[in-house]
Amino acid sequence: MVVEKDYFVLGKSLPRVDAHEKVTGKATYVDDMVMSNMLYGKILRSPHAHANIISIDTTEAKKLPGVKAVITGMDLPKKTYGTDPRFQDEYALCRDKVRYIGDDVAAVAAVDEEIAEAALKLIKVEYEVLEGLFDVYTTREPGKPEIHEGKANNVSSEIHLDAGDVEAAFAKAEHVREDTFRSQPTFHAPLEPHATIARWDENNKLTVWSNKQIPFYIRRLLSHTLELPETHVRVIKPYIGGGFGGKGEMFALDVCASYLSKMTGRPVKIVYTREESLVCTRRRHEMTITLKSAMKKDGTILGVKGEILSETGAYNGTGPLATFLATIFLNLPWKIPAVKVDSYLIYTNLLPSGPQRGHGVLQMRFAADCHLDLIAADLNIDPLEIRLKNAVHEGYRTVNNMNVKSCGIVECLEQAAEKINWKEKRGKMPPNHGIGISGMGYLSGCNLVPHTGAAALVHVHEDGGIKLLTGAAEIGQGSDTYLSQLVAEEMGVPIEDVSVISGDTSITPYDPGTFGSRVATMSGNAAKNAARNAIEQLLKVVAEEMEVDVEDLAARDRKIFVKGSPDKGMSLRKALKTYMYRDLPMPIVGSGFYQAPIQVPDWFKAENDPAATYSFGAQIAVVEVDPDTGKIALKEMVNAHDVGIMINPMAVEGQLQGSIHMGTGHALTEDVVIKDGLVMNANLLEYKIATPFEMPLVHGIAVESASDQTGPVGPHGAKECGEGTQVSTLPAIVNAVFDATGIMFKDLPITPEKVLRALKEKNKGGK
Amino acid sequence: MVVEKDYFVLGKSLPRVDAHEKVTGKATYVDDMVMSNMLYGKILRSPHAHANIISIDTTEAKKLPGVKAVITGMDLPKKTYGTDPRFQDEYALCRDKVRYIGDDVAAVAAVDEEIAEAALKLIKVEYEVLEGLFDVYTTREPGKPEIHEGKANNVSSEIHLDAGDVEAAFAKAEHVREDTFRSQPTFHAPLEPHATIARWDENNKLTVWSNKQIPFYIRRLLSHTLELPETHVRVIKPYIGGGFGGKGEMFALDVCASYLSKMTGRPVKIVYTREESLVCTRRRHEMTITLKSAMKKDGTILGVKGEILSETGAYNGTGPLATFLATIFLNLPWKIPAVKVDSYLIYTNLLPSGPQRGHGVLQMRFAADCHLDLIAADLNIDPLEIRLKNAVHEGYRTVNNMNVKSCGIVECLEQAAEKINWKEKRGKMPPNHGIGISGMGYLSGCNLVPHTGAAALVHVHEDGGIKLLTGAAEIGQGSDTYLSQLVAEEMGVPIEDVSVISGDTSITPYDPGTFGSRVATMSGNAAKNAARNAIEQLLKVVAEEMEVDVEDLAARDRKIFVKGSPDKGMSLRKALKTYMYRDLPMPIVGSGFYQAPIQVPDWFKAENDPAATYSFGAQIAVVEVDPDTGKIALKEMVNAHDVGIMINPMAVEGQLQGSIHMGTGHALTEDVVIKDGLVMNANLLEYKIATPFEMPLVHGIAVESASDQTGPVGPHGAKECGEGTQVSTLPAIVNAVFDATGIMFKDLPITPEKVLRALKEKNKGGK
Repeated sequence: MVVEKDYFVLGKSLPRVDAHEKVTGKATYVDDMVMSNMLYGKILRSPHAHANIISIDTTEAKKLPGVKAVITGMDLPKKTYGTDPRFQDEYALCRDKVRYIGDDVAAVAAVDEEIAEAALKLIKVEYEVLEGLFDVYTTREPGKPEIHEGKANNVSSEIHLDAGDVEAAFAKAEHVREDTFRSQPTFHAPLEPHATIARWDENNKLTVWSNKQIPFYIRRLLSHTLELPETHVRVIKPYIGGGFGGKGEMFALDVCASYLSKMTGRPVKIVYTREESLVCTRRRHEMTITLKSAMKKDGTILGVKGEILSETGAYNGTGPLATFLATIFLNLPWKIPAVKVDSYLIYTNLLPSGPQRGHGVLQMRFAADCHLDLIAADLNIDPLEIRLKNAVHEGYRTVNNMNVKSCGIVECLEQAAEKINWKEKRGKMPPNHGIGISGMGYLSGCNLVPHTGAAALVHVHEDGGIKLLTGAAEIGQGSDTYLSQLVAEEMGVPIEDVSVISGDTSITPYDPGTFGSRVATMSGNAAKNAARNAIEQLLKVVAEEMEVDVEDLAARDRKIFVKGSPDKGMSLRKALKTYMYRDLPMPIVGSGFYQAPIQVPDWFKAENDPAATYSFGAQIAVVEVDPDTGKIALKEMVNAHDVGIMINPMAVEGQLQGSIHMGTGHALTEDVVIKDGLVMNANLLEYKIATPFEMPLVHGIAVESASDQTGPVGPHGAKECGEGTQVSTLPAIVNAVFDATGIMFKDLPITPEKVLRALKEKNKGGK
Repeated sequence: MVVEKDYFVLGKSLPRVDAHEKVTGKATYVDDMVMSNMLYGKILRSPHAHANIISIDTTEAKKLPGVKAVITGMDLPKKTYGTDPRFQDEYALCRDKVRYIGDDVAAVAAVDEEIAEAALKLIKVEYEVLEGLFDVYTTREPGKPEIHEGKANNVSSEIHLDAGDVEAAFAKAEHVREDTFRSQPTFHAPLEPHATIARWDENNKLTVWSNKQIPFYIRRLLSHTLELPETHVRVIKPYIGGGFGGKGEMFALDVCASYLSKMTGRPVKIVYTREESLVCTRRRHEMTITLKSAMKKDGTILGVKGEILSETGAYNGTGPLATFLATIFLNLPWKIPAVKVDSYLIYTNLLPSGPQRGHGVLQMRFAADCHLDLIAADLNIDPLEIRLKNAVHEGYRTVNNMNVKSCGIVECLEQAAEKINWKEKRGKMPPNHGIGISGMGYLSGCNLVPHTGAAALVHVHEDGGIKLLTGAAEIGQGSDTYLSQLVAEEMGVPIEDVSVISGDTSITPYDPGTFGSRVATMSGNAAKNAARNAIEQLLKVVAEEMEVDVEDLAARDRKIFVKGSPDKGMSLRKALKTYMYRDLPMPIVGSGFYQAPIQVPDWFKAENDPAATYSFGAQIAVVEVDPDTGKIALKEMVNAHDVGIMINPMAVEGQLQGSIHMGTGHALTEDVVIKDGLVMNANLLEYKIATPFEMPLVHGIAVESASDQTGPVGPHGAKECGEGTQVSTLPAIVNAVFDATGIMFKDLPITPEKVLRALKEKNKGGK
């Protein structure tokens, strides 16, 4: 498609609409909020990784002056929760068993946090300690205790992909190779910890202010666990200090604050400490992935067999989804005619896993793209060439039905290579220097379950001011700015005329929220359609006034005029006056909706097409390895991403940079260190996210692709660029280290210790 | 019209939707709200009734630790405000002159209220004191200073009604009588004082939480005075602890809190003290009204001449509107073929006047209906008879164009008389006992300015929960409950399925708010239409599913079914599921609008028809006067009101009772006592609102009238019943005292002192 470039607001690097509020520290986050008569809640946590609860005695805690309520799991309705009813296995407070160190056991509401803390110490819990299971291998051994009753060998769920004739592929293979990779758990570590204020009112209506990415989903879960009608639950998302997937789910604090408010008749605030926020919510899934590929000697992939051991920790959370995504995303962005993958989601007695930027896809891409470099080395093919040879293209349908409606993977590879001067560098790097490449494909608009569609409303005020009401949650990714631009463009006004009200389930129309990279496509289309619906109400009046056809009119620069004749028209304000003085309904309310086609009734099948469309990308990393210290210096990175079209270049740049920041930590420094089930580094001093010193020079490249066969899927063809952008960072870095050292590190992160050990091993072998 | 009585939710005495929150003390009012980093504001007030400001020195105040900002009138944009641009004469803070004791001079923001108070004392103001003018007579004398420059004789504005041939009427009169009445100023005295929190954010967008009856109007005024685009101002109305008209306007605290927030970058709260809330906002207009009537001997009114001296105090406020309403409402509910009224709005150096329950109409009705009883006495006609003889009727058009589309005045008179047994009692009361009657007509849906229309939105959630978004402001009158019932009826669900979001200018669609008894008609119709629009989207789907016509379907009891065959249909939930699985946009959003016909471009003309429709009523009071103490015991009252149709009988009863409470105070005990411009009783101990001991036994009668000529105007024919209900309380009581004592008290309130003095005078005359 030829992208129409004559935009008024789109394609401009406008500052974020929330920038000033945030940088001046004035944005109101949950913990900034105080309510009249508010209580403070705290949660008692399990000191054992695995134990039966014999008894809980809250008598003394309840007696402490200032304590207003104490609850245990037995006080709450007996309702488990989770992403999908099939996989719900978690209580807000444990009823008879604890499953990890930090598991939620009881909760207290008191007049201040200190008293609440003191009360926790007065709760007496008697445990029967069970054997703790801490890795995906021992946990499956026969005779081990069942972490969840009825789950034999502690396998929570499995999914199997079998498409194309894999055996035939291996039969005709000219080269076969098998590798196993392990990507470690990582924390989301947003600056703002998890926080909730709940107010259960006298009409049994519940209002929850919480830093949630998916307010409508939380509404559903609160309704379910607290046995309230959905419409009596209102979830309001204030400013959010980062999410990265970690604020998508419901946690104990949400249910406990709500129930404590019900009991006390007062608002209750619970703010997790940094340690709780890290340990007692979610972390990225550790995955151990084995891939075995059947290749032609020219580098053509014939087929792949794989196994995924995905560790969900104590509870399912989004584990089934993560495993599903890891499984099917083996198929993008490289063509594989035959695939067989067997994936298992496994319980352990560790903190639960959850969605994190790149959710499952990232783990698979690390394995698959590093595996591909090993194959390329075996076959003596340039890693860029082997990728270009196997790259998917517009119109391609993966063997398991994923439909590639538009695709810029080749452009991403080529432009990245050109930017870094790949051909001059690859194979010609100085000693201890390396260059590595990778590619990826990602969901742009997760479309797995029915009604992931989005609605939006646009109010046009009497003075020309425009309000967008959207359920899409601004979590720092810039959605309020993105959606404002889309609306401003459609209405023909500068962005400052648009205000956004987002993420309030009682006010903003249904739009589940921010997950699965769906905002760009789903919420974007809904907002655009709502704005179109609004402006058309005005265009109609102007068309009648000027005796022209609606189709001949354009809206731009606060004016409505005949296309091509900007002087033939009237100001937006005049149009509004005209509209008003015909006594037409004020304000003008435009409504918009977007629903991607739904293809299957059950999302948990490996043959699903999970997205409205797909984004693509390629990354190239340049590293220097210090052979004396083992330290890896990431020098330079190119991040080329198929964004469809850039709505806001500065915002795209921010996402391309931010993804590399998170990916760098993941590849080189971050690790959740666990000993006997206890997290040893649950703080931001010892948990090492990348600092500016670790950051490379980043070159962001936005490739603008959109299909001319079926028309753009996202608004103006826009695709996600905040999540998929992190997917190929890991393999690019690891492949670069492979290029520098000849060693493929298959177990992340690549710490200096590991490098030194491996170099020593290699030199020993070399001698 | 025959009122259809087969309602599902309407016509039922349902408890208020906000009852539990309010009676348990959990409802959040402005002063309950705390914001992070919030400052507290205080206002410095004039100690002089009339003075020029020579200089203001804020140096010392600014130096006080804890003080963050000090502003004077010279800091604010030079913008006057008020109801209508023609009459705007008020600055938030005075610039060069103060005009009453309490006038706003400077404002301080500090970290707490005590420091703010201390800072006020450090502000040095130099005044040049001018002569204070305290009544409508001396203020108009030649040579007196002009309170507002250019307003000769301190007459702010005048309005003249001259319709029909008045001179001819007097020429053929068989009886002529002239009387002068004075109704005193009264305080609104809501329990909750005026309070505002303002937050001026880094994007120059202003959010104001304030207890305002008319959030959209306040948005307009803040935009105007602070030079911000309207759409950058958001006014949010939390719970309101009573309004009665006194929370309709913008006051100094709104502008000062906003500007102090702009200066400091922090939220600023200002809560008026009880004294400020009484003295520095508004009170009811004192009016002195002279009426001269030309009568036939049989009691037929031929014509009336009148003069109104309306005292606006230091500023116009809504003075022109009050005077306009007082002038034209001489014409209802008694037919007057020829009218000439000359009305003057006069400045004094007293606290400003403003709208109060019955706004202007009440003052005129006191004068007119007491005047009518004096005439009836002159002509020896029963007061009930003279009213029945002259009562207006459906289809009547007053001589100045007020169009009576439906009318229950005769039914009100007859039912009230029957209830109290008028014919047995009148003229046969024991000594010192009296019985008095009165009647009234009132606006139901003030329609004076363009775009007093209302919009509303109804969201239908996936689980059948329903949200109404309305700009109508719940101020205690019960609008949230009323509107919920209308929506529930239309949607066929019980009231608990409906939630209301009201009065937030960024979220709720345009609907100016609560004034001029417009909510019942305008907001009611908008809500009903929005609900109809929403349910029709569902009916359409069900009709297709069941292969019937939409018109054949009814919605009731959470079901949609074929009319007359409740078993042929489906539940609302099933209908929603059906709708969803067709992938139609969720949630269903219904939008509704109502605009009464606008007749004239300029409201300030006595020939206007100011309302969508009119309510009517009659009241009868029974009193006992203690000749020894002068104390009047109000024994019993009938309040018969033409409500069109009762949406909620219990709510109607509450309004009928409440109006009599306020009217009783007005007639007998309340008075703003002023000495040399200083209010002497600005507290609720010395300002005597009626207590339960003063309250009579009240009989409420709802007369249900609606026109069968033109169809109902309000939703299902409903009319206002919260404001007009107070209009005839005063004359009924005063006429009853006249019946008991033979003395017509023409100057309110009728205190024991006045009664004793008058009885003494009468006995002297009698001897």
